[in-house]
Amino acid sequence: MGEFDLIARYFTRSVRRAALGVGDDCALLAPAPGMQLAVSSDMLVEGRHFFADVDPEALGHKALAVNLSDLAACGARPLAFTLALSLPRVDEAWLAGFAGGLLALADAHGCELVGGDTTQGPLNICITVFGEVPAGQALLRSGARPGDDLYVSGTLGDARLALEALLGHVTLPADVLGRARQRLERPTPRVALGEQLRGVASSAMDLSDGLLGDVSHILKASGAGARIDVDVASNLIAASACLSSARGNLDDDLIRQCTLAGGDDYELAFTAPPTRRDAVAAAAQASGTPVTCIGTVLAEPGLQLVDARGQAVESRYASFDHFR
Amino acid sequence: MGEFDLIARYFTRSVRRAALGVGDDCALLAPAPGMQLAVSSDMLVEGRHFFADVDPEALGHKALAVNLSDLAACGARPLAFTLALSLPRVDEAWLAGFAGGLLALADAHGCELVGGDTTQGPLNICITVFGEVPAGQALLRSGARPGDDLYVSGTLGDARLALEALLGHVTLPADVLGRARQRLERPTPRVALGEQLRGVASSAMDLSDGLLGDVSHILKASGAGARIDVDVASNLIAASACLSSARGNLDDDLIRQCTLAGGDDYELAFTAPPTRRDAVAAAAQASGTPVTCIGTVLAEPGLQLVDARGQAVESRYASFDHFR
Repeated sequence: MGEFDLIARYFTRSVRRAALGVGDDCALLAPAPGMQLAVSSDMLVEGRHFFADVDPEALGHKALAVNLSDLAACGARPLAFTLALSLPRVDEAWLAGFAGGLLALADAHGCELVGGDTTQGPLNICITVFGEVPAGQALLRSGARPGDDLYVSGTLGDARLALEALLGHVTLPADVLGRARQRLERPTPRVALGEQLRGVASSAMDLSDGLLGDVSHILKASGAGARIDVDVASNLIAASACLSSARGNLDDDLIRQCTLAGGDDYELAFTAPPTRRDAVAAAAQASGTPVTCIGTVLAEPGLQLVDARGQAVESRYASFDHFR
Repeated sequence: MGEFDLIARYFTRSVRRAALGVGDDCALLAPAPGMQLAVSSDMLVEGRHFFADVDPEALGHKALAVNLSDLAACGARPLAFTLALSLPRVDEAWLAGFAGGLLALADAHGCELVGGDTTQGPLNICITVFGEVPAGQALLRSGARPGDDLYVSGTLGDARLALEALLGHVTLPADVLGRARQRLERPTPRVALGEQLRGVASSAMDLSDGLLGDVSHILKASGAGARIDVDVASNLIAASACLSSARGNLDDDLIRQCTLAGGDDYELAFTAPPTRRDAVAAAAQASGTPVTCIGTVLAEPGLQLVDARGQAVESRYASFDHFR
């Protein structure tokens, strides 16, 4: 099967919102008047972002999910994406699975595949995603202000727990591993929450490399610091069915590592003034996404970790870096 | 050097036309009122699109050039691009060269780097480029009509000639190889011509995989056929300094292969009604890009190759397919 047959069979679909889709030199997007286009690119590499034997359907889901998560972090509504794919060989069963997972998530978010590229080479998936956001209303990393509450959506640590188990570092009951692995391999981008937080949150980003490291990016961009209540953050563990049910088997250090610096959570971290607590609660409810306040933004730069008694806790939890 | 230092050092620049550039979860683009956004993604893989030892400065140039060529084919004006880069290791000399070649071409076209991704893995460069085009005026592949003239810009075959020499299939004088290699490694996207052809050409595409194969895509999309005068097309050889100066050393079959199915030319193929010949000539002059009429669009599907006497010429020249 040649390149053009491949594109035609698995990746050509009619478009409804884009002005022109797959099959020409460019796709054409027509943002509605008053809208800005939010754009993000993520590249996934075998052995770095996923195991060689991962279910292709899950991989298709995840490749788009991590990009939709970037749109969510900006409060943008998904519109379209391009897919560039380097494949070692044409494996039709693999492609059918991959396209199935990818396009099911795309359909669920009304996000159209409008173009891309295919070539032969080491497995590499590069998606560029486009979303619409009213001009001036995108959620940025730079808007956190001293006194703002610091929130996290959902629960943290399950994806890292699954990774540790798959690497053989810990042993988990089969049902716990199954659920944790779902969160590693099929993350849920918080798109609805991101849209609801427009006009409410003062800053936001998605958690891909780990809570502490990612929150540091918000603080650096905002010229601020923060105090995080580690015990409150650890309550997110209790809210995680996987980590709480596995808790008896795991040492506390690993649990904290998973929660504070786990990576691959694809939850949103965001800030909002205390005056907007009702609005934050309403956004959480409207999007069906739980949120937890885990700290406060400070004027003084740096990240202070404290326990429930206000005592300082030393951080040894590094964030993920793709070149370390 | 970690991922964030890498991005900061080589790939973070202030933006002027985009609403938000590198450093947040998304970049923000704000197309002007009445404009559509043209989008294209191209992925370049070591060993498939370039040799491992290619000059990184030339590679940076080419990675963006092939994307700008897609914008040119739509008649779109370059606006911005994202860069996703998978690197085996952080090699600062390589990165400085790559970024230098990439950003020099970007600056020449006012095309801003607004975001992307970096990761560790086999060398892979994925660029997604954005251009503006007035709504409804993009040049598409589907607009060719029977009776239209079929044109090609510039000259064809030099890139393929360089590739054959680098693969050891032919021997070229050093100066000829040097010039041919420039066209292989530092192609010139025909952006100005593409913009000038808006409202003039009935269809267009860029020549990346070879003249005959690529023109077939226009014809298929337009539900038409074409007759190409191979002798006129071969005059493009005479116009190519490299192929003409090497002509004595090369067999006719190789020359025809380079011209008709060479690939990597990044010239534009386009059609226009005979009534617009003056407008085509004016577009060529305004953009400083020579164009040559090489045939005629026919109602009957298929590609007919004829010589100067109108006799049929059999085609044995296959186009490049990334999975063959």
